[in-house]
Amino acid sequence: MTETLAGYTYDDPDLAPSPVTPEELAQLQQSVLWSDADRAALRRAGEILVPQTEAILDVWYGFVGSHPHLVEPFAGADGQPDTRYLEAVRGRFGRWIADLCNREHDGTWLAYQDEIGRRHHTTAKNRTDHVDSPSTHVPLGHLIALIVPITVTIRDFLAKGESDPAQVDAMYHAWFKAVTLSVALWARPYSPDTW
Amino acid sequence: MTETLAGYTYDDPDLAPSPVTPEELAQLQQSVLWSDADRAALRRAGEILVPQTEAILDVWYGFVGSHPHLVEPFAGADGQPDTRYLEAVRGRFGRWIADLCNREHDGTWLAYQDEIGRRHHTTAKNRTDHVDSPSTHVPLGHLIALIVPITVTIRDFLAKGESDPAQVDAMYHAWFKAVTLSVALWARPYSPDTW
Repeated sequence: MTETLAGYTYDDPDLAPSPVTPEELAQLQQSVLWSDADRAALRRAGEILVPQTEAILDVWYGFVGSHPHLVEPFAGADGQPDTRYLEAVRGRFGRWIADLCNREHDGTWLAYQDEIGRRHHTTAKNRTDHVDSPSTHVPLGHLIALIVPITVTIRDFLAKGESDPAQVDAMYHAWFKAVTLSVALWARPYSPDTW
Repeated sequence: MTETLAGYTYDDPDLAPSPVTPEELAQLQQSVLWSDADRAALRRAGEILVPQTEAILDVWYGFVGSHPHLVEPFAGADGQPDTRYLEAVRGRFGRWIADLCNREHDGTWLAYQDEIGRRHHTTAKNRTDHVDSPSTHVPLGHLIALIVPITVTIRDFLAKGESDPAQVDAMYHAWFKAVTLSVALWARPYSPDTW
């Protein structure tokens, strides 16, 4: 994709490097049982999922939209859901699906994961989209809890592009590991001294 | 079980109530897609898993033991793994399997989840087992990352007691949701103001 995506700074050379070292990343990968087979399975998952990005986002946004406590972080200055904010995040959330499946776990990836973490935390929430929101952060408990819906909803989309249940399962678990690894990294700004 | 388990204070009336309200718990349950069907499936999982507790702990401790960064929190005063500490935690970890499957999500459960969180955090790590450890906390990133191995390793144990793949899958996902909900609660002491 070549179009500009507002607030998307993945390859921005000005992005601050992550304080997470390659050794710390390797340990986290070990903790989530990450393997070369997962990397390959996630690449295949990307081929199936990326063309379905809008349908996946429809499911996720439907889920968020049906729970007031999940919509709350998208409140604008008037306390009501800010459509522009929701749409801006949606665009980057869609790109995140492709990045999760296809990007290398290198320093650029780490830097952007830390930026995503800051954008959920008081450090930088609302800044990217210039929102005057009463919501100062996405609560850490829900950031962790959302590992479940972001994982389990993906299996049906994988099954649409792969008929072998064993292959679906391999892609599904690679996705689960990658999502959990991402959330572990995103949690760093919430507790830098005990992360 | 009626034997005394050192440091196990689940039903201790002196345990501090959790600051998490029933409403906040209900929201977290929504975020992990928790349902009555999951509750029932997790009860059935408990019937299969509890008799296999020692075999499950062997797998988990084998995994921890093979990764220096996961053993490190169990270091004693001399920096080496403290066998007594490892064994004391193992006993409670085993009881946790039964509690995860069988306990109601009530105030007593919430209070003990917060206590488990404190015991991983600088607030109270090493206190329960009177260990003079150089490890002051379990890193938050790994606390989150370990959702994966604690989840994926359980499927084979479920399959040993249930031949219907759909039933195994239901129990497996109920377990996944309950583990993630637990870790979300355990994370609270790491970032109380943005949890």
